[in-house]
Amino acid sequence: MSNQAPTPQQDQFANKAQAWSARFSEPVSDLVKRYTASVGFDQRLAHQDIQGSLAHAEMLAAVGVISNDDYAAIQKGMASIQEEIDAGRFQWSIDLEDVHLNIEKRLVELIGDAGKRLHTGRSRNDQVATDIRLWVRAEIDHALELLGRVRHALAGLALEHAATILPGFTHLQVAQPVTFGHHLLAYAEMFGRDAERLADCRKRVNRLPLGAAALAGTTFPIDRERVATTLGFDGVCRNSLDAVSDRDFAIEFCAAAALVMMHISRLSEELVLWMSPRVGFIDLADRFCTGSSIMPQKKNPDVPELARGKTGRVYGNLTALLTLMKGQPLAYNKDNQEDKEGLFDSADTVRDTLTIFADLIGGIRVRPEAMRQAALQGYATATDLADYLVRKGVPFRDAHETVARAVRACEEKRCDLADLALEELQGFHGAIEQDVYGFLTLEGSVAARDHIGGTAPARVRAEAERILAQTAAA
Amino acid sequence: MSNQAPTPQQDQFANKAQAWSARFSEPVSDLVKRYTASVGFDQRLAHQDIQGSLAHAEMLAAVGVISNDDYAAIQKGMASIQEEIDAGRFQWSIDLEDVHLNIEKRLVELIGDAGKRLHTGRSRNDQVATDIRLWVRAEIDHALELLGRVRHALAGLALEHAATILPGFTHLQVAQPVTFGHHLLAYAEMFGRDAERLADCRKRVNRLPLGAAALAGTTFPIDRERVATTLGFDGVCRNSLDAVSDRDFAIEFCAAAALVMMHISRLSEELVLWMSPRVGFIDLADRFCTGSSIMPQKKNPDVPELARGKTGRVYGNLTALLTLMKGQPLAYNKDNQEDKEGLFDSADTVRDTLTIFADLIGGIRVRPEAMRQAALQGYATATDLADYLVRKGVPFRDAHETVARAVRACEEKRCDLADLALEELQGFHGAIEQDVYGFLTLEGSVAARDHIGGTAPARVRAEAERILAQTAAA
Amino acid sequence: MSNQAPTPQQDQFANKAQAWSARFSEPVSDLVKRYTASVGFDQRLAHQDIQGSLAHAEMLAAVGVISNDDYAAIQKGMASIQEEIDAGRFQWSIDLEDVHLNIEKRLVELIGDAGKRLHTGRSRNDQVATDIRLWVRAEIDHALELLGRVRHALAGLALEHAATILPGFTHLQVAQPVTFGHHLLAYAEMFGRDAERLADCRKRVNRLPLGAAALAGTTFPIDRERVATTLGFDGVCRNSLDAVSDRDFAIEFCAAAALVMMHISRLSEELVLWMSPRVGFIDLADRFCTGSSIMPQKKNPDVPELARGKTGRVYGNLTALLTLMKGQPLAYNKDNQEDKEGLFDSADTVRDTLTIFADLIGGIRVRPEAMRQAALQGYATATDLADYLVRKGVPFRDAHETVARAVRACEEKRCDLADLALEELQGFHGAIEQDVYGFLTLEGSVAARDHIGGTAPARVRAEAERILAQTAAA
Amino acid sequence: MSNQAPTPQQDQFANKAQAWSARFSEPVSDLVKRYTASVGFDQRLAHQDIQGSLAHAEMLAAVGVISNDDYAAIQKGMASIQEEIDAGRFQWSIDLEDVHLNIEKRLVELIGDAGKRLHTGRSRNDQVATDIRLWVRAEIDHALELLGRVRHALAGLALEHAATILPGFTHLQVAQPVTFGHHLLAYAEMFGRDAERLADCRKRVNRLPLGAAALAGTTFPIDRERVATTLGFDGVCRNSLDAVSDRDFAIEFCAAAALVMMHISRLSEELVLWMSPRVGFIDLADRFCTGSSIMPQKKNPDVPELARGKTGRVYGNLTALLTLMKGQPLAYNKDNQEDKEGLFDSADTVRDTLTIFADLIGGIRVRPEAMRQAALQGYATATDLADYLVRKGVPFRDAHETVARAVRACEEKRCDLADLALEELQGFHGAIEQDVYGFLTLEGSVAARDHIGGTAPARVRAEAERILAQTAAA
Repeated sequence: MSNQAPTPQQDQFANKAQAWSARFSEPVSDLVKRYTASVGFDQRLAHQDIQGSLAHAEMLAAVGVISNDDYAAIQKGMASIQEEIDAGRFQWSIDLEDVHLNIEKRLVELIGDAGKRLHTGRSRNDQVATDIRLWVRAEIDHALELLGRVRHALAGLALEHAATILPGFTHLQVAQPVTFGHHLLAYAEMFGRDAERLADCRKRVNRLPLGAAALAGTTFPIDRERVATTLGFDGVCRNSLDAVSDRDFAIEFCAAAALVMMHISRLSEELVLWMSPRVGFIDLADRFCTGSSIMPQKKNPDVPELARGKTGRVYGNLTALLTLMKGQPLAYNKDNQEDKEGLFDSADTVRDTLTIFADLIGGIRVRPEAMRQAALQGYATATDLADYLVRKGVPFRDAHETVARAVRACEEKRCDLADLALEELQGFHGAIEQDVYGFLTLEGSVAARDHIGGTAPARVRAEAERILAQTAAA
Repeated sequence: MSNQAPTPQQDQFANKAQAWSARFSEPVSDLVKRYTASVGFDQRLAHQDIQGSLAHAEMLAAVGVISNDDYAAIQKGMASIQEEIDAGRFQWSIDLEDVHLNIEKRLVELIGDAGKRLHTGRSRNDQVATDIRLWVRAEIDHALELLGRVRHALAGLALEHAATILPGFTHLQVAQPVTFGHHLLAYAEMFGRDAERLADCRKRVNRLPLGAAALAGTTFPIDRERVATTLGFDGVCRNSLDAVSDRDFAIEFCAAAALVMMHISRLSEELVLWMSPRVGFIDLADRFCTGSSIMPQKKNPDVPELARGKTGRVYGNLTALLTLMKGQPLAYNKDNQEDKEGLFDSADTVRDTLTIFADLIGGIRVRPEAMRQAALQGYATATDLADYLVRKGVPFRDAHETVARAVRACEEKRCDLADLALEELQGFHGAIEQDVYGFLTLEGSVAARDHIGGTAPARVRAEAERILAQTAAA
Repeated sequence: MSNQAPTPQQDQFANKAQAWSARFSEPVSDLVKRYTASVGFDQRLAHQDIQGSLAHAEMLAAVGVISNDDYAAIQKGMASIQEEIDAGRFQWSIDLEDVHLNIEKRLVELIGDAGKRLHTGRSRNDQVATDIRLWVRAEIDHALELLGRVRHALAGLALEHAATILPGFTHLQVAQPVTFGHHLLAYAEMFGRDAERLADCRKRVNRLPLGAAALAGTTFPIDRERVATTLGFDGVCRNSLDAVSDRDFAIEFCAAAALVMMHISRLSEELVLWMSPRVGFIDLADRFCTGSSIMPQKKNPDVPELARGKTGRVYGNLTALLTLMKGQPLAYNKDNQEDKEGLFDSADTVRDTLTIFADLIGGIRVRPEAMRQAALQGYATATDLADYLVRKGVPFRDAHETVARAVRACEEKRCDLADLALEELQGFHGAIEQDVYGFLTLEGSVAARDHIGGTAPARVRAEAERILAQTAAA
Repeated sequence: MSNQAPTPQQDQFANKAQAWSARFSEPVSDLVKRYTASVGFDQRLAHQDIQGSLAHAEMLAAVGVISNDDYAAIQKGMASIQEEIDAGRFQWSIDLEDVHLNIEKRLVELIGDAGKRLHTGRSRNDQVATDIRLWVRAEIDHALELLGRVRHALAGLALEHAATILPGFTHLQVAQPVTFGHHLLAYAEMFGRDAERLADCRKRVNRLPLGAAALAGTTFPIDRERVATTLGFDGVCRNSLDAVSDRDFAIEFCAAAALVMMHISRLSEELVLWMSPRVGFIDLADRFCTGSSIMPQKKNPDVPELARGKTGRVYGNLTALLTLMKGQPLAYNKDNQEDKEGLFDSADTVRDTLTIFADLIGGIRVRPEAMRQAALQGYATATDLADYLVRKGVPFRDAHETVARAVRACEEKRCDLADLALEELQGFHGAIEQDVYGFLTLEGSVAARDHIGGTAPARVRAEAERILAQTAAA
């Protein structure tokens, strides 16, 4: 077997600065190089790239495509490279386009021909797909932990305020009294669904594309199941063309991230509103606020405002990825390189935001008296009066209309329903008796909503404890 | 118990055209009425609204809040209303705003006071949330069935063309030969993931909000689990504020729909391309094409083009719903009325598109000769030559470079790799022997990619059969 | 010249239910027909379609391609058709796909061969592009008028409240006192920019595509400038391929509409907030509010909430159109049919919303006392104290820090800056003298900001009058 | 006047690492600092920030708010700072949040109290708005120049290929012959509209917000017109609340950028398609292409593919900014800090992409023979035959139907229309005579479309020359 040593001009990497490969007659221009290179952002995948390469090499050795010595050399070389990267000593080169070629070239420098054998039976197309999936999987696991911490913080504060009454709003008008604990647990539900959604997404992330090679699979006798097991994947992608072209998992992650941020934006809106002086329900710890460069008195809830604003970028990243894939023919196109920055940005934003909110929630100072005063304004117990009439036999629709007239009278007199004398109340409906006043208090109102999902303090406590237990590890 | 009969002016519905309730001093203007009314589009929920009301009434009777006679009357009244709707005789009124009030008012007309008791212990806020969930659940079930049919059609055609060779493209350049069956199965994978995703979404759709009432729950001793069972829900929403305000399920459905349409847009792009005369890989049945008002020779692939275009509206609906919920404080706000039209439109688009594609795929006429000719162009087996060299002991990176030089030489000679004489090939690398020609054929190339996910005809057949079995019921 | 009368089977329209044209072997299926037909929504363009056809026919006659008799017949036929449409008697048929074929077929029914000559030298591709441009141009003109009315209403209320003081917020925290008139005029600026933007967009809408025919122009000696003049276009599209494929104008309109709705969403957010009982700055007229099906006391600001929600659909339509055009090759593709519904919906939403807001603004009841009370809370004049110190020679950064300490002291004492005794104030900085109190009043604060764009009542009055004059015709 | 020197603890900047100002009791946490700091990205605005500060200081000196000595010191300090920045020696600190405080603190270090006077009469709110506007204005001017260069390159190539015939496609089916020059000029039209749109946008960018201070204006006797003139603004923002909160101009720019990239995506789609071997109309210069890590024969059109993919991020940035502003109350909220990264990214993407395309277009190698062959396929002159019949007196609709039958016959015989004998043609319509063959050639077809916007070579030449002249400076 004549296995000629390559002459220098045959070395694919050495030539990169001149031309892509022997097939090309001119090098890419500097602007093109900069425009098309991804190493500026995909070096974040270096750890995953090495992890994937090692699993691939282990399998190549196991099935006999490369020797055990080659595998050992690759392990050693990769360990050095990881060390160089960790130490910030690795020289990233834009001439080598991406994280994959940078690492592979360095490997060849370090270990010679064994390094040139690593790419056997794979392509950058399946390699990058594998790297991103490993990365997203780790981000999901981190996000799940953070969602647990945020829910834990919400449930903890909810338990404390299971009986603290504030007005429940619909249309930002006072609707019915609710407890602050109940209100907080609404967000615990939202973040709980986010966790479910990410866990479902993880199933579709956690499949191995490696082995698809460029698009059609490879002629080497690879063992994809073995690689999947090594890397902790649940299974393998079952079609090579799909494997290299699929970015569904990235889009699904970005969509789940958009919902997380949508929930954050709603909570933030309320925090900002609650901290506004006319409302004054809460105060945020100073460490989450900043001042003004001109107004010395200002203490601004910067963190929730900024988090609300960051919803935009996460929505935008979803739009970007969906646009990217629209109408793309199979299999791999260079367009797909655009999948990373938006994905990274959404993951970063979700991570930072959840981390900060897990802390911020614990730093909320509640002002129960302001909440109570607000609940006393706006006829919050009008529905209770209607319900009272129903229990006296009045059909609901008639009871509703009766109470509407009573409220209108109160508005004219500028008083609350509980301020009306019994005779006045009876003027609206003869069925009203002395016991009505028990139903018109805030405490009576919330306590009466005592069913699954209701705002009664006992229910809120039970739910809070359930969530605290569920997120105990967080 | 003094249960006064309501005087006409106490009737909430009778007054609607004048003022919202006794609390209001002027009626809404006609433009406002038109602007805020939803009955024009939410009457689609009529069946679900009746279904939900019946389950609610059954529970109210079971727990003793209304009498069995009232329940019987409600059943009877609702049966009449459903009949009127089915027959197109129901009079929808914009004065009554939405599907809920229209039906409730008709019920009161038909059965009197029993009708006025139906709304006890609920609100339109939890009622509409329940209706939409029932509707989305049915749409998901329908979409799952359609995805099965589309995958069945793809797998059927794939089985037929498990050995039909066309060029696999990356960057729309010829990459490696693949089989047409393999290419089709890539789409079967995509639609398979869509089905998984919708099934996951269904879990979060299928929870009962009813019982949350306006936002805080109700003072009546309701049994939410009972209603959930009656309506086939998997469980109940565990927080009333969240229950009336949550539209995550609609957004998650719209995101899943966006991915379905993204896949459709990719398949459509390829169909349009394949049918273009320069490519000519397929022909679509005439029933999916139209002509031109001016060019008599035209036969245009209108259906895939339009489907590709409809991706836009489904992306847009997702953007719309995400925007809608951004920064909304709890609990219910009128903004949420905007949740329906986009949701309906996405569901309709997915349903119509999948229905038509299940049929269209069966109507594809394949032109194997054109595919084969195309595969012979573009050095599709260059990778096979590199792999051949690797098996002869050449490190992959050197083999790659060697073949690049051979390709460049062929380009200059305007011939294929297989057209080079052995001595010429050996000029590029001494390891090349006579057996090389076996690896340079299209058939040899595809047959050699014989692992899970690879394009070897045997693998394609196995995958196609697996999917056919999986979707047999479809 | 042998000009055979067409036999029935040659009549293109008669066959439509069977097959597209003589070139097709099977008819489109019913589902395909429904899926691809646009007549359900593009019949809105009927008036523009007729208008465009008449201008085209006039030109054909002028250049001698058709006879004057033919033109006269076409005029007569079109008049009948417009009448039938106006009277609701026109029979729209889905078999005829779109508004163009429906009208043309009816024309042929009414006037025979002259009708068959109308389509000479044009195609549906340039025809529909012309129709949409005419439609959008009219919508822009209407929107400009409505923006004028909204600005007039804002300026009118601003003039009335040029000296009514409320707290200016940044971060929803009290910042500095401003006048309510000044606050309203901020929105007048926004809607003013919207008008500029639409006027700029109109220039690009108002170019004639007709004459591009299918994509390449026509062999008939057409006079495009003549048609442009007849239809009031500013010029003609200068490239036929671009003319039939360009939908920039629709996207630009949708982007401008998105900004209009963004402004509406901001104003709505504030209206909802201002009407919330804890804030109580304003009350909306009952005709813009609705009540609750369960809470008898509720009066909800439905209109601004719904308008805020409708921002979503208009953003979504923009996303849809941008997605639609992404990656579309020249010239016309069926995808483009999807340009209409989103465009129509955005125009409708903007029109209805502006119409209603022009009325709603006039119905705002202002509560100056609540505004004033709020302005007294939150150290709104702290910046004035800092500015005072600067005028006494203290560098701004030091003055800022000095006042920050004074505010902190006030917070601890729960008093306002103006409540501190002179000695106390001097404890913070020796430069403070008795005259400081004049700068700590709300009136002093707003009056001092007397430059272009400042909140001084005199400035607000001048600006309001300027805008009232500008929009006097509205 | 007692103007105490500030003690160290009074220095606002020195304390930043501990607490925001004297008003705060605890510093922001490190994560919060990182989360809320913008200096990582807004340091790009350093030049504009200095420019704006100098204009502000010049005006303060002119109206006597600061001394001429202070102004001179500020000029000197700023010159040093600009130098430090240019040399990469400036120490950016995350503790100082943003570009404004970083520069201001350095100024105070360099020049003492004069530096502390700079912020008199302004706020970061109007300062940052000014900086961004200056930045966007420069980007627009750069984009206008680049659009000119791209159009110049297109027109140059168009002139060269004014008579090169390729098939014009609709629905990717052969429609009618067009010239390649005509096709290229369609894109010149698109980019021409982009330039108009950006020029219109520039008018709304180029207004001065400075002087709005935090939100209400300032108590100092500022001269905003003077600052506007110094900075080259066309005018001043006329409402201070609007001035600090307005981000319309950024959204409008992002929308215009989205259209630019949409056009780029269309051109890219065609370039990729034209370079695909089955089409083979063009070849791109090697410097715009890359190879494959596994397939040695590949030459991929990476640049147009990546450009097409980058459409996604620019659409996404628009979505992000629109989302950001949705429902934001006046005046400034921290959300607005999120306006920059998306804006920067869109501007960068447009700039890089246009720069590269201006070069890429010149590097297109056209293959006229392949184009011609393709045009001969698909009955491209069928419309010409129909038009021929019309000129013989046949109504267009009948002519269309006649030709459709002729095409169907050709398809069955697998020949072209020009291949039919005269008797065969006369079998379809008796009006056909010997002269028909002149109309069935490609050259005859394109030459006949000789009106404004038509594809006749003479017209294409004239248009190309018009655009070359228009863009001569580019």
